[in-house]
Amino acid sequence: MGIVRFQVSVSLDGYLAGPNQTVDEPLGAGGENLHLWMFDLEIWRRQIGEEGGIVNESTAVLEEARANVGAYVMGRKMFGGGPGPWSSDPEWKGWWGDDPPYHTAVFVLTHHPRDPVMMQGGTTFHFVTDGPESALVQAREDAGERDVAIAGGANTIQQYLAADAVDEFELHVAPQILGGGERLLENVGELRLEQVRAIEAPGVTHVKYRVLK
Amino acid sequence: MGIVRFQVSVSLDGYLAGPNQTVDEPLGAGGENLHLWMFDLEIWRRQIGEEGGIVNESTAVLEEARANVGAYVMGRKMFGGGPGPWSSDPEWKGWWGDDPPYHTAVFVLTHHPRDPVMMQGGTTFHFVTDGPESALVQAREDAGERDVAIAGGANTIQQYLAADAVDEFELHVAPQILGGGERLLENVGELRLEQVRAIEAPGVTHVKYRVLK
Repeated sequence: MGIVRFQVSVSLDGYLAGPNQTVDEPLGAGGENLHLWMFDLEIWRRQIGEEGGIVNESTAVLEEARANVGAYVMGRKMFGGGPGPWSSDPEWKGWWGDDPPYHTAVFVLTHHPRDPVMMQGGTTFHFVTDGPESALVQAREDAGERDVAIAGGANTIQQYLAADAVDEFELHVAPQILGGGERLLENVGELRLEQVRAIEAPGVTHVKYRVLK
Repeated sequence: MGIVRFQVSVSLDGYLAGPNQTVDEPLGAGGENLHLWMFDLEIWRRQIGEEGGIVNESTAVLEEARANVGAYVMGRKMFGGGPGPWSSDPEWKGWWGDDPPYHTAVFVLTHHPRDPVMMQGGTTFHFVTDGPESALVQAREDAGERDVAIAGGANTIQQYLAADAVDEFELHVAPQILGGGERLLENVGELRLEQVRAIEAPGVTHVKYRVLK
């Protein structure tokens, strides 16, 4: 059976989104800067349909993050919820475009029942209304031998950390101080961690941890 | 002229001390675990008068941290203040022992005027009552061509970061989640950082940043 893991970009002061998140600026003030290290990478540009780009120490980290993932779990806001489109437009298919970068089943935590939405490229959004534990069970079943990745946001990751359901995670620590916003590592209970590795890359440090059971 | 810098161990959730700090447990609950990576090192054991120990990737980091420091600045609590010994015993010389690991002038921020205290090994504690700016001016003067190191604690470091007086800092990120306590990177204002380097070592990741002016 695969493991449960997540990987996210965080600021040096521990935020994965800045203050004042809106539908237009879902990562809040300064939040996009957490991903600066990624924008010039060939592997990232290819994903958004752009040519060119560079290869550096971060490339293998991103390749590994995507490899062997059989299913994703994400929160409602990350799918594209919040006070905006989700509630006003029943045809809304999230803000990931026609061909979302998941290419597997994605289990979206929500309070609103809805039929699955099949996208291009193999991504299907399933809407789970009976809680995070059920979503993880369904994702694990769907993933089979492969891993389940918790895509985010902070609140969803925190719930799985607090339930001791996460086996491994990698933080992409960006040289940014946001000073406020959505903090990743709070309300996660007592966790014993082991540092698996640290990788220095241009404009970011990738640090991976195993959760000791 | 030298630069102004600091280096501290922090938990993955950003604390440099855990909750419930007391005179007996100055680093709070779990706070000592932030330094586990250091205890087996030969360079650390030598400092506390023990033989043996190992050399690993952290050794050069600690050597660099101590090299070229001409003076230190520290807060009252770090010298050994707080509600305990400081106020009750005018002969109190801090909790660093007879031969503190500084071997230079150390400027202690306090509200209580006091004559300098000369210790063994070249450390002299000077007590500064007219604020952090004055302490830094005195430390710079004393350090000459060498660097000034802000020894801590969190509050003292924050004041110098917020005043944009720090040129460089290194975090020793320990695989620990403390869930509360004294957080390092808050109330530091807007800082633009550049990642200088990241070093993977057993049980810790050392990440160094330059503050862009």
